[in-house]
Amino acid sequence: MGARMKHERWKNNFSEWFDEALWNAKIMETRYPVKGLYVWLPYGLKLRNRVLAIMRELLEETGHEEVLFPLLIPENLFKKEAEHIRGFEGQVYWVTHGGKDKLDVRLALRPTSETSIYPMFALWIRSHADLPLKIYQIVNIFRYETKMTKPLIRLREVTTFKEAHTAHATSEDAKAQVRAAVETYKKFFDELGVPYVITKRPSWDTFAGAEYSIAFDTLAPDGRALQVGTIHNLGQNFAKVYGLEYEKEGGAHEYVYQTCYGISERVIAAAVMVHGDDLGPCFPPRVAPVQIVIVPIPFKGEEKSAEKVAKRIAGELKAAGFRVHLDERDLRPGRKFYEWERHGVPLRLEIGPKDVKQEQVTVVRRDTGERFTISLKVVNREVRKILKQINKEMRARAWKSFLNSIRDLKDLGEIKKVMDARAGIVRAPWCGKEACGKAFEEKTRGSVLGEELNDKRMKGVCPVCLKPAKTSVLIAKTY
Amino acid sequence: MGARMKHERWKNNFSEWFDEALWNAKIMETRYPVKGLYVWLPYGLKLRNRVLAIMRELLEETGHEEVLFPLLIPENLFKKEAEHIRGFEGQVYWVTHGGKDKLDVRLALRPTSETSIYPMFALWIRSHADLPLKIYQIVNIFRYETKMTKPLIRLREVTTFKEAHTAHATSEDAKAQVRAAVETYKKFFDELGVPYVITKRPSWDTFAGAEYSIAFDTLAPDGRALQVGTIHNLGQNFAKVYGLEYEKEGGAHEYVYQTCYGISERVIAAAVMVHGDDLGPCFPPRVAPVQIVIVPIPFKGEEKSAEKVAKRIAGELKAAGFRVHLDERDLRPGRKFYEWERHGVPLRLEIGPKDVKQEQVTVVRRDTGERFTISLKVVNREVRKILKQINKEMRARAWKSFLNSIRDLKDLGEIKKVMDARAGIVRAPWCGKEACGKAFEEKTRGSVLGEELNDKRMKGVCPVCLKPAKTSVLIAKTY
Repeated sequence: MGARMKHERWKNNFSEWFDEALWNAKIMETRYPVKGLYVWLPYGLKLRNRVLAIMRELLEETGHEEVLFPLLIPENLFKKEAEHIRGFEGQVYWVTHGGKDKLDVRLALRPTSETSIYPMFALWIRSHADLPLKIYQIVNIFRYETKMTKPLIRLREVTTFKEAHTAHATSEDAKAQVRAAVETYKKFFDELGVPYVITKRPSWDTFAGAEYSIAFDTLAPDGRALQVGTIHNLGQNFAKVYGLEYEKEGGAHEYVYQTCYGISERVIAAAVMVHGDDLGPCFPPRVAPVQIVIVPIPFKGEEKSAEKVAKRIAGELKAAGFRVHLDERDLRPGRKFYEWERHGVPLRLEIGPKDVKQEQVTVVRRDTGERFTISLKVVNREVRKILKQINKEMRARAWKSFLNSIRDLKDLGEIKKVMDARAGIVRAPWCGKEACGKAFEEKTRGSVLGEELNDKRMKGVCPVCLKPAKTSVLIAKTY
Repeated sequence: MGARMKHERWKNNFSEWFDEALWNAKIMETRYPVKGLYVWLPYGLKLRNRVLAIMRELLEETGHEEVLFPLLIPENLFKKEAEHIRGFEGQVYWVTHGGKDKLDVRLALRPTSETSIYPMFALWIRSHADLPLKIYQIVNIFRYETKMTKPLIRLREVTTFKEAHTAHATSEDAKAQVRAAVETYKKFFDELGVPYVITKRPSWDTFAGAEYSIAFDTLAPDGRALQVGTIHNLGQNFAKVYGLEYEKEGGAHEYVYQTCYGISERVIAAAVMVHGDDLGPCFPPRVAPVQIVIVPIPFKGEEKSAEKVAKRIAGELKAAGFRVHLDERDLRPGRKFYEWERHGVPLRLEIGPKDVKQEQVTVVRRDTGERFTISLKVVNREVRKILKQINKEMRARAWKSFLNSIRDLKDLGEIKKVMDARAGIVRAPWCGKEACGKAFEEKTRGSVLGEELNDKRMKGVCPVCLKPAKTSVLIAKTY
């Protein structure tokens, strides 16, 4: 059975749908009186913590250690790496005063933490025995966005920036780490059921100070690509500026090779949007703050028996480790259904008169609307099976819809039509030259995401210069 | 058996001891190049997360929900409550520029979040049904400290500020919430084994904007009191300024009554200092990042058998839920002992030739230095018992030493001697008048912590005005 009601507002009025979904599900409060700043509500924060728990687990099991660096970076330190500062200086918030005093040195609110972390790496790294060094932190970062802001997507305070930073003895080790980070992010997005393309960003869209950047993009219902993760090979660029030298086994000194990779609350935006429908978000059981809501259906004369069974089942499921909410409020069941559907709770258990009598529970899947009964005797086992199934099916559906939105095209006019219609991602043959890549962007009004990591090479010629294609490239409207 | 080596450096050179302890245990990196900003190292961050987990659990089980508000507060919002701003304006960092643009409205880095949270409360609270409202967040806050800064204690970025904010229908409900918060904090500090006095702060040391403030203080080894938690009854002060009105059942409107209460990473400083000794920190098993370190003692010819047993025991203890580290490095055991003692790991298991032969493990307690053997057959059960015992004994020892540092005195000259010698906390009779309280501070060079919550009233006269004492007061040198 497929997803239900994935049509009208979700797709055709996505921006409005998204804001409403965040409010109806009590994820974000968007009325904070500064542009680009929002408040995480309790339900949203639980979702955030579930998502971060998955990321932490993946990083810890691959040898990353969590640290926490200061937010404030003195201007002199921040401005050491020339490329980096050129990339960020338009976006940095500056603290200039403490109390009534003007500060001697202005302090940047970190827009990312290379310039605060690497001076400390210089103190920590002495010899090859200190390498590789792999750390990460989950912090708030700040960007002075002048464009339109949007909750979870384009923020002035990114509240949830996971940034990993590594240092290695050789260039090969750094490259291997980039590949390992790609694998980690794949696993992460697979857990969220969020589909993605992985591209090597074009030269003109590389992270400021990096040798090359790799990015994960997913697709919003409005047909625009959303960058949800980036991985950068920094080479020795920062190492040379911040003096990150190590002593090799022979005694010679060399600069370390570095990588860094990040995700933000955009991954939560992605989970909200790709699984959503006209009712609002629908969360995969893996990350849902509440996996199962139990609603007793009272009936004249025997109000107590449904409540009693509901309570017992709730206790059993909780004890088995599920995230369960028993809704005992004195409200009509319909009102409760409405509310929890909008909270994206993947499974609803109803217990009515017939259920009590027949020792069963009625189960309703949020993703498909399917409705069936299971015997009370096997609730735990069946629920576990269903939730697993939902995770799997939600991921499969999201991937199917995503892959359907990627089309191979060879004509600039046709590509432009797709861009104008915001109809997804286009794969096009490319000669590999920067000038032609930039011409793609000018002529189609789309952005070049980059070359796919596992390049599904298209045959043919570059539609700009008409020379034989060496590779292919993905193009999309982007957030 | 008592604590060992709690004498020389720990007490007589506390400031140096503290900095070294944080570095040797790899809790903080203190060389970040901005005054008052420090870096949490992985071991320290694990400790922090253990401590926060206890706090979160206590707050969740008492009906608080976690949220996350923005860091930046626009100047107009921040300056609405006159008392509050007077208390903080000398300490606030101001963001004045975004990129090259001067901002229209300056943005404060929150020094605390009343002024960002309460305008949102005004949107959320409509009627009595919305009350009580109880939320908390764990965030970074900023204070432009002009005094000497110190890691975990006096910071410009407080990285770990837990602030709870509540709104109530009646004054009585708010007062009851203050009492409930006191109970929560008691439980919290009992879990950390940190002893405390609880006082109602004097009028001249009340939180800016509060009706009254209650504070928890512990004692540093250098005899100075350290404020580790505060609880404020805000009355209707903020409610009136930010328009927090609710509709009563009858339809009339009234302003809500509010409380707020906070702790910071000072609670971690407290755990480091009160349980420390000349070897460094010693963590209660309840919060220790590593509870048990296992060190195999290799012996000629049979290197493998100790390692094998060590590995098996480590696996068993991990499976039983303990936080275990098996130190298999190719280093002398003595070097390992040295290192883990400085990390404050409460229990060390050694497995040497004799242990293997006799199917036992040698156990060394970090807190007492006690050394004994237990049979391999009962390791899990015995270790659980010992760790529990250590928690209990560490708390009891800390309390004993703390209570010994509080003395009842009635003579201003004697009190001044204690203050000059930084010899702890003094309890003195007080007439209750502000003028006499301030005279205590002038004449003794100590600070009035306040009246004890469960007042152990001293008989006699106020040593300043010589009128009959109505209450008693605690006085100490403070951080």
